[in-house]
Amino acid sequence: MTKYIYGIDIGGTTVKMGLFDEKGDMLEKWEIVTRKENNGENILPDIVKSIKEKNTEKSIETDDILGIGMGVPGPITEDGRVLKCANLGWGIFSVADEMSKLTGVEKVKVGNDANVAALGEQWRGGGRGFDNIVMVTLGTGVGGGIIMDGKILTGENGAAGEIGHITVNPKETLTCGCGCKGCLEQYSSATGVIRMAKERLEASDKPSELRKFSADEIGGKEVFDAYKAGDELAAEAVNEFAIYLGMGLGNVASVVDTQAFVIGGGLSKNGPVVIDIVKEQYRKNVMFALKNTEFRLAELGNDAGMYGAVRMVLQ
Amino acid sequence: MTKYIYGIDIGGTTVKMGLFDEKGDMLEKWEIVTRKENNGENILPDIVKSIKEKNTEKSIETDDILGIGMGVPGPITEDGRVLKCANLGWGIFSVADEMSKLTGVEKVKVGNDANVAALGEQWRGGGRGFDNIVMVTLGTGVGGGIIMDGKILTGENGAAGEIGHITVNPKETLTCGCGCKGCLEQYSSATGVIRMAKERLEASDKPSELRKFSADEIGGKEVFDAYKAGDELAAEAVNEFAIYLGMGLGNVASVVDTQAFVIGGGLSKNGPVVIDIVKEQYRKNVMFALKNTEFRLAELGNDAGMYGAVRMVLQ
Repeated sequence: MTKYIYGIDIGGTTVKMGLFDEKGDMLEKWEIVTRKENNGENILPDIVKSIKEKNTEKSIETDDILGIGMGVPGPITEDGRVLKCANLGWGIFSVADEMSKLTGVEKVKVGNDANVAALGEQWRGGGRGFDNIVMVTLGTGVGGGIIMDGKILTGENGAAGEIGHITVNPKETLTCGCGCKGCLEQYSSATGVIRMAKERLEASDKPSELRKFSADEIGGKEVFDAYKAGDELAAEAVNEFAIYLGMGLGNVASVVDTQAFVIGGGLSKNGPVVIDIVKEQYRKNVMFALKNTEFRLAELGNDAGMYGAVRMVLQ
Repeated sequence: MTKYIYGIDIGGTTVKMGLFDEKGDMLEKWEIVTRKENNGENILPDIVKSIKEKNTEKSIETDDILGIGMGVPGPITEDGRVLKCANLGWGIFSVADEMSKLTGVEKVKVGNDANVAALGEQWRGGGRGFDNIVMVTLGTGVGGGIIMDGKILTGENGAAGEIGHITVNPKETLTCGCGCKGCLEQYSSATGVIRMAKERLEASDKPSELRKFSADEIGGKEVFDAYKAGDELAAEAVNEFAIYLGMGLGNVASVVDTQAFVIGGGLSKNGPVVIDIVKEQYRKNVMFALKNTEFRLAELGNDAGMYGAVRMVLQ
C-alpha cells in the first residue's frame, strides 16, 4: 500500500502544495491562492479543502497519509507554534495542532519557510551530500536557514538563521525593515543592489547601460546583466553587494563553521558569477581555518520549501 | 567503589589539572608547567606523570577512572584530533588516542579550550539552567564557545564559536592576529580597550584619570575603574568596546538565536557594568524577536575548563 506525504509552502500570495510518495519523490504539485483577509482565517481551511479534494481524486484515505509538512513565513517554535506572522495576519497559535484537528492526520510538522527551504536544498538540492549547510536566499530580502546534522536549527525564539539581519555596516543611516540600521539585507538583496545602482545613477553622470531603462525597469537582472557586460557603474553596485555579503557570510562561518553555503533566491539566477564574487569577498573576511568552506547554487527553486516540508515529516 | 574523572585544561603557561568524582564534584586541583620546547613533546607525558602520581597518592587504579577530559588551545575536531596548535608547538595528531595509549584509560575526550570552558559554565557556572548558551571570553583576545542542547558546537573545521573574528568594522585599516581587518577582538578585548584608551590619550589633551599612569600601567581594570568614576576619555574607549561587542553578539544571535550569553574573562571581573553596557548596545542591533536574550556573568573563572572537560566525559 503506497503511503503519501503532503508538502506545503505557505507564501504571502500563493500556497504551494505537493503530493509526495513515502520515499519523498514528488508525484504532483499545484498552487492555491493565499487568502489573507480576516487575519488569514481562511488559509488553513483552504489548504485542508485542497488536500481533501486531492485525496478524493487519488482515492487516498487519511490512514494512507504519513504526515503533512508545512513552511510558514514567520517565526515558528520547535513544536509548531507560530509566534505572530505579520505576512499572513496570524497571531500566536499552534499551526501543527490546528492542522491535525482539521485533517485527522496526526503527524504535522511546521517550520519557518526559509528554514524549511534550506532543509529541502540540503536533502534534495544544492546542499546534497552535506549534513551541515547554511542556505542564503537573495530575493526581495535576504533570508537564511541553518541545517545542522541534517536538521533545522530553530533557535530559542524561532529566529536562528535570520542572517539578513546581521549588522554589516555600523555607520548606516537608513533604517532596515526590522528597525535596525546596517543589516545585510539592506545591501545584498535584490532591493539592495537595485537601490545602490539607482543611487549611483542619480549621483553622477557616469555613462551606464542602465541609463537606457526607466527607474521602474531596473531589476536585479538588469544590474547583473550590465555588470557581466562590463558596465562600471553596475560593477560598483554589484561589488558593494558582494563585499557586504562576503562579510556577512564570513561572520556566519565564524559562528557555526558550516560545510557549505547554498545560495538561492532571485539573484542567484544570475548564475555562477554570484558565487564567484561572493566567495572572493568571503575569503577576505575569515580566518585561515574557514577559507575552504564550499559554495553551491540552490537547485530546487520554488519547490525547495515543499521538499523540506516533506523531509520534516520523514525525520 | 568511587569512580574518578580527570579534568585537564592545557594553557600556554600552565596545565590546570583537577580530580573529580563521578558526580562531577571537584575533589582537588593543582597546576603543572606547560613545557613547550621541542614542539611541546613533553606536554602529554608530563600530564600523564602527574596523573599517575595522583593515582598512587590516592590509591586510584586505572579501572577506577571513568575518563579523562581535556581542553586544548587550538582547533580540535569532533574525534579529538588537534589541527595544528601554534600555542603549544603541536602539529596534527589525535590527542585523544595518544592520551589513551599513555594512560590506559579508554575514554578520553578532547575539545578546544574556549569551547570546553563554555561547556563548564553551562553545566556548573553562569549558564546553569540553560541548554543553549554562547560564552564570550574577554581577555587578551575575544574567545567564544557555543553550547547547543548541552553540547559543544565544534563545526566543520573546529572553528565554530570563533566570535572574536567576526568582522564588525569593514573600514578598519589595522590588521588582526588572524590576518583579517576589523575583527571584534580588535575592539572588545582587554588589548582592544587599552589600545583605544591610549590612542585617545595621545590624540588629545583632554584631562583624564588615566594620565596619572604610565603607558605600561594602563590595563583593562584601570580603564574600567576610570569609566566607573565618570572619566570622559575612558568612557569613550569603553563605549567603543561596548558598541562593537553589542554588534558582534547581535550578529551571533541572528545566526544561532541562543538562550543566554555568558560573559567571562579578565574584563568581566569589572562586574555587572560590563553586562549592562553590552546588553544596551546588543538590543540596538537585533530584531524584535531577539531582544530578550539573557546575559550572565561567568562564575567559574579559571576552573571552567576543568569542569567542561569533566562534563565531556560524563556525556
